[in-house]
Amino acid sequence: MIYFDSDYTAGAHPEVLEALCVTNGEHTIGYGCDSYSENAKNLIRKACGLTDARVYLLVGGTQTNATVIDGVLARHEGVLAAQSGHIAVHESGAIEACGHKVLTLPHYQGKVKVTDVGAFIDEFYRDETYEHMVAPGMLYISFPTEYGTIYTLKELEDLSEVCHKADIPLYIDGARLAYGLAATEGDVTLQDIARLADIFYIGGTKVGALFGEAVVVTNPNLLHHFTPLIKQHGALMAKGRLLGVQFEALFRDGLYFEIGQKAVRQALAIKKAFVSRGYTAVVDSPTNQQFFLLPNTLIDHLRSNNISFETWGTRGEEQTTVRFVTGWATTESDIDALVALL
Amino acid sequence: MIYFDSDYTAGAHPEVLEALCVTNGEHTIGYGCDSYSENAKNLIRKACGLTDARVYLLVGGTQTNATVIDGVLARHEGVLAAQSGHIAVHESGAIEACGHKVLTLPHYQGKVKVTDVGAFIDEFYRDETYEHMVAPGMLYISFPTEYGTIYTLKELEDLSEVCHKADIPLYIDGARLAYGLAATEGDVTLQDIARLADIFYIGGTKVGALFGEAVVVTNPNLLHHFTPLIKQHGALMAKGRLLGVQFEALFRDGLYFEIGQKAVRQALAIKKAFVSRGYTAVVDSPTNQQFFLLPNTLIDHLRSNNISFETWGTRGEEQTTVRFVTGWATTESDIDALVALL
Amino acid sequence: MIYFDSDYTAGAHPEVLEALCVTNGEHTIGYGCDSYSENAKNLIRKACGLTDARVYLLVGGTQTNATVIDGVLARHEGVLAAQSGHIAVHESGAIEACGHKVLTLPHYQGKVKVTDVGAFIDEFYRDETYEHMVAPGMLYISFPTEYGTIYTLKELEDLSEVCHKADIPLYIDGARLAYGLAATEGDVTLQDIARLADIFYIGGTKVGALFGEAVVVTNPNLLHHFTPLIKQHGALMAKGRLLGVQFEALFRDGLYFEIGQKAVRQALAIKKAFVSRGYTAVVDSPTNQQFFLLPNTLIDHLRSNNISFETWGTRGEEQTTVRFVTGWATTESDIDALVALL
Amino acid sequence: MIYFDSDYTAGAHPEVLEALCVTNGEHTIGYGCDSYSENAKNLIRKACGLTDARVYLLVGGTQTNATVIDGVLARHEGVLAAQSGHIAVHESGAIEACGHKVLTLPHYQGKVKVTDVGAFIDEFYRDETYEHMVAPGMLYISFPTEYGTIYTLKELEDLSEVCHKADIPLYIDGARLAYGLAATEGDVTLQDIARLADIFYIGGTKVGALFGEAVVVTNPNLLHHFTPLIKQHGALMAKGRLLGVQFEALFRDGLYFEIGQKAVRQALAIKKAFVSRGYTAVVDSPTNQQFFLLPNTLIDHLRSNNISFETWGTRGEEQTTVRFVTGWATTESDIDALVALL
Repeated sequence: MIYFDSDYTAGAHPEVLEALCVTNGEHTIGYGCDSYSENAKNLIRKACGLTDARVYLLVGGTQTNATVIDGVLARHEGVLAAQSGHIAVHESGAIEACGHKVLTLPHYQGKVKVTDVGAFIDEFYRDETYEHMVAPGMLYISFPTEYGTIYTLKELEDLSEVCHKADIPLYIDGARLAYGLAATEGDVTLQDIARLADIFYIGGTKVGALFGEAVVVTNPNLLHHFTPLIKQHGALMAKGRLLGVQFEALFRDGLYFEIGQKAVRQALAIKKAFVSRGYTAVVDSPTNQQFFLLPNTLIDHLRSNNISFETWGTRGEEQTTVRFVTGWATTESDIDALVALL
Repeated sequence: MIYFDSDYTAGAHPEVLEALCVTNGEHTIGYGCDSYSENAKNLIRKACGLTDARVYLLVGGTQTNATVIDGVLARHEGVLAAQSGHIAVHESGAIEACGHKVLTLPHYQGKVKVTDVGAFIDEFYRDETYEHMVAPGMLYISFPTEYGTIYTLKELEDLSEVCHKADIPLYIDGARLAYGLAATEGDVTLQDIARLADIFYIGGTKVGALFGEAVVVTNPNLLHHFTPLIKQHGALMAKGRLLGVQFEALFRDGLYFEIGQKAVRQALAIKKAFVSRGYTAVVDSPTNQQFFLLPNTLIDHLRSNNISFETWGTRGEEQTTVRFVTGWATTESDIDALVALL
Repeated sequence: MIYFDSDYTAGAHPEVLEALCVTNGEHTIGYGCDSYSENAKNLIRKACGLTDARVYLLVGGTQTNATVIDGVLARHEGVLAAQSGHIAVHESGAIEACGHKVLTLPHYQGKVKVTDVGAFIDEFYRDETYEHMVAPGMLYISFPTEYGTIYTLKELEDLSEVCHKADIPLYIDGARLAYGLAATEGDVTLQDIARLADIFYIGGTKVGALFGEAVVVTNPNLLHHFTPLIKQHGALMAKGRLLGVQFEALFRDGLYFEIGQKAVRQALAIKKAFVSRGYTAVVDSPTNQQFFLLPNTLIDHLRSNNISFETWGTRGEEQTTVRFVTGWATTESDIDALVALL
Repeated sequence: MIYFDSDYTAGAHPEVLEALCVTNGEHTIGYGCDSYSENAKNLIRKACGLTDARVYLLVGGTQTNATVIDGVLARHEGVLAAQSGHIAVHESGAIEACGHKVLTLPHYQGKVKVTDVGAFIDEFYRDETYEHMVAPGMLYISFPTEYGTIYTLKELEDLSEVCHKADIPLYIDGARLAYGLAATEGDVTLQDIARLADIFYIGGTKVGALFGEAVVVTNPNLLHHFTPLIKQHGALMAKGRLLGVQFEALFRDGLYFEIGQKAVRQALAIKKAFVSRGYTAVVDSPTNQQFFLLPNTLIDHLRSNNISFETWGTRGEEQTTVRFVTGWATTESDIDALVALL
């Protein structure tokens, strides 16, 4: 079977696994106070072009979003997000469970528009009853989005500006950050993210780690006392060095970026193959997630030939939208086998 | 350096790590819906002597306690626990963050007394203002306790009875369960735990896994819709099979129990060595955690000879309480080296 | 000045105030355990045609909504509501502060459609990832709505049916219930509300009381242990009889319904006057709130002649939507004075 | 029947009720933005000797405590309080429902000791695992306490100092503030309270109002955006002027203080009568609550002669502790009738 279901169906990239095996027998202090974690944080800071950002290593994405947002917002505030944002749809109400409303904005293939953000904030404070409503306390965006799309540098700069003018932080969910940075038509670097966001996280789970998300706090006014909050959210690993060891492997020699580049190259090859045969890419995604509208006959044909992938929404009468995802474990022969079946 | 600091300072037991390595390249469905997780749950049910208990695999202990307790309690209820209980002291307020009070009881070397539990419940409902107070909604105990002590079978039966008479569930935190079951002077089996508790968890992190706690729900009336709650608490791993693979390794051939037995044997050897030389065991612990009151001179002597261990509380003028902990990674030569220094 | 701003700008209906004055010097037990509260609850049960519903007296509407919804929902559930619903917009995030998402539905002049409710529930459970999403755990509607509109009996029956088929309770916010029941073109009685809703509240604050909302729980499976939850939400008055005395006055001889009927008659007179002069009623409201699109010149003319009312949204270039509200304190001469100015 | 059960068994002081009646027919803007509320706040500021403190008017005590504490604490913090403190015992877990632990200190007839507060904070930060514990984020005390006792000025100054040295606010629950200020052996003025506390509230419910508590925020760094939080907590009255009108009546000509003085004088007369006849005052209270250990025969004798009062705890074999409380409604003849029966 060849899998294009998601980027978290296999284990860790071999180099990451190797690092875990090599260090397995060592004893270190717990809860992330070990030297592997310290080193990983330094490597991340260096990659971001930052000298004094605070870096925290957590386990999973929903957990990270809830812990960060809970730590940033005041009790009367909510978080702005696209209606399609992960926190708005697929986190089982984790943000609300912390006491905060997700204030949704229209989405454009997963992205928010700076004009919508600005208008929301303006209208909120022009409303005489605004103290009876939930104040916008931060902006959440994902890069790339849940649709595989990315923001341009100009768009990120504008979002950062509209947030800072309103004195609310910009938070970027980078669960698949490597794939967004690797988009060939993109112009955003990790340093740009680090410069424009107040907080963001570098996703490990979907980019070669067994698990792990690295939160980078560039705004020195935010998330003081974050460690007890991580503990309170059940996100502080006893064997914290497991996170350090993995992020060290990912950031020591650029492996994180290589995984992203390889997977995006493969995803675009898949896209090219489908489109050249006349199928529609329903989202113009430049990253490792590709969405196509395919005849059900083709879907069945591929699946009967051991190609595994997910439908996106329910199966249609004759055609259905499907998703193909590449990751560290996707091989060139996987791509060849798929293309040969089209 | 030889480490007796804790049972979570090293990585995974080699057999557990091997299982992760062997399965690393496979693709499976995410979020714990894979066959490794299913198999692990079956092995756990079998070990518990249960055929239809529900089993859930979570990542860490604080997370597990918060998710379970949040799922069990009604909004007006709190959880009874020893004043020394992990949820009362060392979880950064995770239970309160879910909206619930920890109702504390006196502790006796980490244990609660059934008479105290019964008296609390009786007095609560005899108080005319009880609707202005937090109702006891469940009982939390740890086995073994934070002091390494264990309950006898009779004590557990009595606690179970007093809870069920009051119609509140008994929840057992088994972060170090294997060590409690391995206590040579203990008379409690895993099947007893499964029979007497409404919910308990089998700790993996401190017993040979990289991470992982298996929640067993034996009471069919509790924790319906627990999966969305796990997700909401950020405790649902994307690569959920990592938990399944590890618990499979731990429960396939009894490795979980072997780790417990070995570590307890070693801990008792340490205890015997200290006591035979006239030092005081400040807790009468039959498990893998041992507490001694030692002269500071001996503490310094051991540490200067590469024996690493924690002080328990602050350093005294002349003597200090220390803790020695054994685990899967403790070797016989570690014990010999320690004993030779006494 | 003549006020049409809202139905909570004046104090209590004279009969209600009189009841408070007459009983002021008496001593009674606190927290609503007095005989006035007991009698008020009996009168409410009788008016509802119920013999054994539980009735609870709270202070304000937002408080009531938060306490009820918090008490009904399981941790993984949210509440369905119109996008224009009070809990979705104007309660400063009180529902989210209790940990629950407001799942919004399209609104049609404040009302939800039964087909939208049904479709939401169906689609939710057809989604394979539904355990990663917030489950619909109850339906909230307001009667009349925030736009002054009302549901027909058939609509309420359908909503009740779709809820009960999905095994979720129907909750009706009756902050202005008397005005909805008094709508001349309506066909819904208090007994209908009591028969179709699992929980509803009878608003006092906007219908002649100084404050107070009476929660009626008709579904015996819901809101057990509600008193400690009321206390926890800070909604349990020390001098609880104040609520009992007021609801007794409102329900002893039908005053509650008379206030509604009088105010609706007056509101319809206002509507007739505006419409007959060619102005547009922007909502077809049969209750005590009326919305008109008026030329700014007329708005200024009325205001300069001591007619006070609110604009609805921001002032337009030439025309603006305004709201006129009647209540217990609106007099016939108020209406005459207004009409004379048109 | 003559009532000594509590200070909230009767309605409002006649002057307060009169003010409500006189203003009943007026129309004012809602939610506390009216001129009565503004005037009441000015009168309170003046009485406190403050020119720019912020004042907020809420409805009840539990509600006030929860809203204030929720607004002050960061997510990882808890509130220090005496084990006997109202928030620790009698608020149905309202503080925990907001996500925060009540960190309890020993109590001495309801009071905390400055040395205990200091020691708690010192030990907390000396503990190496303090990030796994709940940080002390504020100190809650009540004046007078739940036992009727009061702090001396020196004690309050010391508590204020230890808090400010640790950079945590001091919050004083003044549910019965007037009675504490009126204690003949006390040396604390309202201005002292205002100078030493960062936040406190002036209780109206138990001192002549129908309901109402005035929160005074003297520390300009705290409780920004408090109005939306009040709304979120369901504590923002639609007819907010009811609070303004009442506090205006209480503070216009010193009525608040007079009620306190009168009731304390009466309570001390009761105390003198009991003690002079050889009965034990179990708490040395200088305020309006008095606690005596009485023979059950006397208790029964008094009750059969129409004297109503509460037992404090359960009835003993031969003797029982009882509580006598005076308030605005206690008359001189009430006292005479009681004394005559001893």
